[in-house]
Amino acid sequence: MIGGGSWATAVVKMLSDNLTEKEIYWWLRDVQSIAYLKAYKHNPKYLSAVEINIPAAHISGDISEIIGLADYIVLNVPAAFLKETLAGVTPEMLRGKKIVSAIKGIVPDENQIIGEFIHQKFNIPLDDILVISGPCHAEEVALEKLSYLTIASLNVAAAKHFSGLLNTRYLKTITSDDIFGTEYAAVLKNIYAVASGICHGLGYGDNFQAVLISNAIREMKRFVDAVHPITRDIKESAYLGDLLVTAYSQFSRNRTFGNMVGKGYTVKSAQLEMNMVAEGYYAARCMHIVNKKYKVEMPVSRAVYLILYEGHAPAAEMQLLTEYLN
Amino acid sequence: MIGGGSWATAVVKMLSDNLTEKEIYWWLRDVQSIAYLKAYKHNPKYLSAVEINIPAAHISGDISEIIGLADYIVLNVPAAFLKETLAGVTPEMLRGKKIVSAIKGIVPDENQIIGEFIHQKFNIPLDDILVISGPCHAEEVALEKLSYLTIASLNVAAAKHFSGLLNTRYLKTITSDDIFGTEYAAVLKNIYAVASGICHGLGYGDNFQAVLISNAIREMKRFVDAVHPITRDIKESAYLGDLLVTAYSQFSRNRTFGNMVGKGYTVKSAQLEMNMVAEGYYAARCMHIVNKKYKVEMPVSRAVYLILYEGHAPAAEMQLLTEYLN
Repeated sequence: MIGGGSWATAVVKMLSDNLTEKEIYWWLRDVQSIAYLKAYKHNPKYLSAVEINIPAAHISGDISEIIGLADYIVLNVPAAFLKETLAGVTPEMLRGKKIVSAIKGIVPDENQIIGEFIHQKFNIPLDDILVISGPCHAEEVALEKLSYLTIASLNVAAAKHFSGLLNTRYLKTITSDDIFGTEYAAVLKNIYAVASGICHGLGYGDNFQAVLISNAIREMKRFVDAVHPITRDIKESAYLGDLLVTAYSQFSRNRTFGNMVGKGYTVKSAQLEMNMVAEGYYAARCMHIVNKKYKVEMPVSRAVYLILYEGHAPAAEMQLLTEYLN
Repeated sequence: MIGGGSWATAVVKMLSDNLTEKEIYWWLRDVQSIAYLKAYKHNPKYLSAVEINIPAAHISGDISEIIGLADYIVLNVPAAFLKETLAGVTPEMLRGKKIVSAIKGIVPDENQIIGEFIHQKFNIPLDDILVISGPCHAEEVALEKLSYLTIASLNVAAAKHFSGLLNTRYLKTITSDDIFGTEYAAVLKNIYAVASGICHGLGYGDNFQAVLISNAIREMKRFVDAVHPITRDIKESAYLGDLLVTAYSQFSRNRTFGNMVGKGYTVKSAQLEMNMVAEGYYAARCMHIVNKKYKVEMPVSRAVYLILYEGHAPAAEMQLLTEYLN
């Protein structure tokens, strides 16, 4: 496991509730968290109620060491920090391993989804790349509330094998071969959660929210069908389900960030106040750039982009958007 | 307007914020409500903050009088009371008029959606039947929160004309020709809201809820496509949007009813406690009967039926359901 946030902690919990714990190796950046984890078997910063039963020797701040020991490398840092995290990692170190993206985001500057970035930058065959997708709040995994994850890979056997490592009494898995659609859906849903938060902050109600999400899922389908035209049902859990859990949750960082923007905070002050990364903020810009190539009609994402990056007033922009929706 | 509940009051408000008020005629069953409305211009029981500016002479408890005066008859009573409400109404009284169903339910015993029942029982041509569908909580109409309604009719001109009567600053309309799909979707969403409430009451979280709704919309599509196979996008506001606003609302009667059942109330005690009609309760039984003909795979509706009517334990039945979902 590469990353020390709440989602990384949740996935470690699933794996250790399934595997014998000694098979898990965990890299975290923060040395204080590592020391605390080794001493007290809890992550001090995230999901701190979860007991972590990994041997102390399996937890390290040395990414080369952890990568060297593992067969599956689960990437689980914010997309904005991925390049920095992998700065000392070479293609040789990853050769022959399976790379699992648990990140919902786009690599800044590169404007690539994680699978695409890993494939190109590290020469990892697409067959060795997997994607974990929700709907799944880490907080509910900590509480052992029944959740479903989708594991996507072009390599069906690898997807099934990794699914088997996650399945536990509170966790069911679904496999899929749609790595591109699953990743883009996970990126887009964060933008839609920001939109949903902005509208809530502006005073729009539940009736409008339902219309917004109904339009957002159609927009998501248009986009992923354009980027990767395979047969998929956008109403499945990995797409619609993931959108719902994010857009309807009071606890979603993206929705909270949007809500502050809708209530009149500037983008900068909302970010300072939250002190957390809202992936949807970065995603809005990246998707705006990516979509220059595909030219898909995306009024919801576009409105978020214009509000966050072009200084458009939230009230006026959302008012305009209401004319497009149906 | 035939009916005196919160949705009837909300639709009267939309119409009167659009039309000159004198063109609206309103039948209510309750004589005290009628007297109060005439004296104080507010419905004492539902959405009582809304000012009703209809001339006193246009409000009556005589259904023949109100029907005689109107071109569009908007049916807006609980489905369980429709037959009783229309007991003194003859096909002749309705001839040449447009019948608009604002009811989300199935006529008990007949096991027919409203349009079908009116068509057969009163010999109303299908072309003269319209359906109003959400996503739209009446409470948010009272607050003038922007909402969208879908008006469905085989008669496109009639749908457009009636839409024009509803459009106002806080209300946008969409027209559709899918009267059967729209009605069945509105019936099913109440069952799914009950399911959602049961699961919440049992302690399932937001992650599971998202999976449940993702499965429910696919179940809805299977059913409406079987009953009325036309080209439709189930992700539109009238289907998915309506499901979302009902299943995710804390204020939905159906969700509240389900929640009580999930928490361990018997069906009877939950009904007594609520003192309101949860349409989903009746719908679960009617849909169970209707689906005997179509034999569509409907695990979510079936679980609700088994819990509400066959005495299956909510925890065990939902546990079984989790094995079907993906």
